[in-house]
Amino acid sequence: MDTQRTIPFERVSDAIERDLAGTDVAVVAEALEPLSTSQVVQLLERLDPRRMALAYRLLPKRRAVAVFERLDAAVQGDLVGALQDEDVAAVFGQMEPADRAVLLDELPASVASRLMQGLPRGERELTAVVLGYPERSIGRRMSPEVVSLQADSTASQAMERIRTRLVDAETVYTLPVVDQGRCLVGIADLRDLMAADDQAPISELMAEPIWVTVTESAEGAARLCADMRLLALPVVDAESRLVGILTVDDALAILEEADSEDQARISGSEPLRRPYLATPVRSIVRSRVVWLLVLAIGATLTVQVLEVFEDTLAQMVVLSVFVPLLIGTGGNTGNQAATTVTRALALGDVRPRDVLRVALREVRVGITLGVLLGVLGFLVASAFYGMQIGAVIGLTLLNICTLAATLGGVMPLIGRLLKVDPAVFANPFITTIVDATGLIIYFLIARAVLGL
Amino acid sequence: MDTQRTIPFERVSDAIERDLAGTDVAVVAEALEPLSTSQVVQLLERLDPRRMALAYRLLPKRRAVAVFERLDAAVQGDLVGALQDEDVAAVFGQMEPADRAVLLDELPASVASRLMQGLPRGERELTAVVLGYPERSIGRRMSPEVVSLQADSTASQAMERIRTRLVDAETVYTLPVVDQGRCLVGIADLRDLMAADDQAPISELMAEPIWVTVTESAEGAARLCADMRLLALPVVDAESRLVGILTVDDALAILEEADSEDQARISGSEPLRRPYLATPVRSIVRSRVVWLLVLAIGATLTVQVLEVFEDTLAQMVVLSVFVPLLIGTGGNTGNQAATTVTRALALGDVRPRDVLRVALREVRVGITLGVLLGVLGFLVASAFYGMQIGAVIGLTLLNICTLAATLGGVMPLIGRLLKVDPAVFANPFITTIVDATGLIIYFLIARAVLGL
Repeated sequence: MDTQRTIPFERVSDAIERDLAGTDVAVVAEALEPLSTSQVVQLLERLDPRRMALAYRLLPKRRAVAVFERLDAAVQGDLVGALQDEDVAAVFGQMEPADRAVLLDELPASVASRLMQGLPRGERELTAVVLGYPERSIGRRMSPEVVSLQADSTASQAMERIRTRLVDAETVYTLPVVDQGRCLVGIADLRDLMAADDQAPISELMAEPIWVTVTESAEGAARLCADMRLLALPVVDAESRLVGILTVDDALAILEEADSEDQARISGSEPLRRPYLATPVRSIVRSRVVWLLVLAIGATLTVQVLEVFEDTLAQMVVLSVFVPLLIGTGGNTGNQAATTVTRALALGDVRPRDVLRVALREVRVGITLGVLLGVLGFLVASAFYGMQIGAVIGLTLLNICTLAATLGGVMPLIGRLLKVDPAVFANPFITTIVDATGLIIYFLIARAVLGL
Repeated sequence: MDTQRTIPFERVSDAIERDLAGTDVAVVAEALEPLSTSQVVQLLERLDPRRMALAYRLLPKRRAVAVFERLDAAVQGDLVGALQDEDVAAVFGQMEPADRAVLLDELPASVASRLMQGLPRGERELTAVVLGYPERSIGRRMSPEVVSLQADSTASQAMERIRTRLVDAETVYTLPVVDQGRCLVGIADLRDLMAADDQAPISELMAEPIWVTVTESAEGAARLCADMRLLALPVVDAESRLVGILTVDDALAILEEADSEDQARISGSEPLRRPYLATPVRSIVRSRVVWLLVLAIGATLTVQVLEVFEDTLAQMVVLSVFVPLLIGTGGNTGNQAATTVTRALALGDVRPRDVLRVALREVRVGITLGVLLGVLGFLVASAFYGMQIGAVIGLTLLNICTLAATLGGVMPLIGRLLKVDPAVFANPFITTIVDATGLIIYFLIARAVLGL
């Protein structure tokens, strides 16, 4: 943000980055002191692991824990590698079970098991619970430290119970209500408990619960929490028994990762697991090279198509002049449609079985765009190259736009049906297919109109 | 989400969509009854305004308000247009001031002022406060109904005060602390107040506040709230006086809009203001056609470049066969870099003044990718077309990848410096520039190597 507040921080942050290269660490410790936790996090995420560990060890102990918890898991992993064992053990013991589980996934197995050994028994058990659920499931990201209320207790009994859990519970503001068998039957808000009569039964204060099962995807659960504007979402097992809670702050972290992933995939690269400046160049290359190669190999299709039409090209060199414009427009139209539908899928506005409805809409959108661009293309190309070439360009634009919009709209849905990330399946594939098909359409139209 | 829970809903939802075409509304009212608020919202957002109003009027009154509040502002506007005046007035009176302000922006001025007239005085004033702040500022999206505590009061006095505001306050879980002059001096958590001694002064229970000023951008404030994992963020005026609060649920709504906007812009289209299926085809066309035209006009640059080299092309028709592959690879490389940096900018991982650092990294990434693809391109092209063509393709890929990655990384930062949406400035522009420059590089290399 462009506020007065952040300008001094930027200067401080630069100074610290410089001073870390020097030998006088006291200067750095002093400079770190007035910064907020988030500023320290921002600063550390700009440094390489060695300098990060150097700066991290200068933080007071309590603060260090708060900062560590807010780093991306991959960055935490880097930092653990660069820190001394005792520093790590101290922080690890303070983390929440779910955050601990995410970090353990980042670490070499030997480091992970050594850290787990060092935990007190209760903490180790909580962490093991979280680790027992499948990767990418909400079980991995929820907190097992949930305060539940009994449906048959009263408001004052509930308040008593809450008071005993003020310190360790993940949240006391949203309270799942369970029956004798620990099955979720409702959800109560602390605010309503405070406003209620002491003797009011919880069963009358609670609302219908919204919940997820523990094996559902973390992204789906986080999206539900956000969509419903909930402060916390109870998590239950297959028998409807309460096993944990997802708070909105953890949901936010999950959604941030998911949106970063979608954006990366739409552009045909793998998401980075660290903040950009903290990612080594070789990891950036790795995140991009595979897709780039796949797309380049896909693009050899266009080489083959053009070879087939090499004679036509040799007769009319002017045709090759329009190739980048035509396939570029096709690619743009396809990407627009694919991005819109991918986003609508992520937000739940569109479902895979809407495929026909989406196809129908995109055909109409594509034809409209195609007519607009086609007429314009016809007029401009006619003016410079004559009516015949104009007709070829106009007709090709009409066909390419319709094809690209339809494919672009349908592909993400097909991706979802095939259980592939819709973002991957859509944009990168579309470019390849639209390019090749577009060229075939172009030359067939050219041959027909020009009589070649 | 693919859960058992949503499958029956999908079937119910289809049935309702069908039944709305018929005449027996009682069937629909009955079908709506067991659905959750979010399911009703999802359902309505799939319908056209006429059928939406029909279904909406079948909801019980209290429920109708809850549903209305959760609709996108543009959809609310459509619905208001299709509903009777008295229905609208009832809902409007129940909305929060900030939500009301967002809806008023959607409505024709005459409807807006009629609705404002109908409000009780207190509500009208609260809404006017919110309307007084610039569009897209956090002032427009915050709630002015904030419970503040006095720094010199005690925990028990504070709890008393909170109890009187349980019904109307936006939140009672995060409590801004102010001094005598209403200046923000701290922030207290209800949980800590509950755990404290009755006589403990608030000044000892509060923490350093994190805050935003009321004219800052709504997206920036929401991002801060999310980054810091806050349940609520106090909003102050230029004199540090508390004027409102942004709760995390409203922050979530703002971030969802901002991320949708970024994704749309990256693909060269304007964001849709309604859910996909509720957007008329002509609005979808409008969201895409301008960018498509701009990009097509930009692409005429490639036509001009190719005309300059038409003689070279006529001499060696085979050169034209590689054009889509080469510019496609350039476009992909550029988009990968631009998307990564755009996302890093949005998350605050990169700042505009990092432009040199980013450029340096992307040059290295580009060269590495270029060497990998270039060597591969050389080998494959040599095998089919001979060493000379192979060398042209290899060298061109190396140059194009380096150029595209660097431009792709730097453009979003330049966009931010020029106060243009980095997402717009980056991807669409890159394609155009990389395509044209790439072609020039290609033909210059070809002429040099082939001695044309």
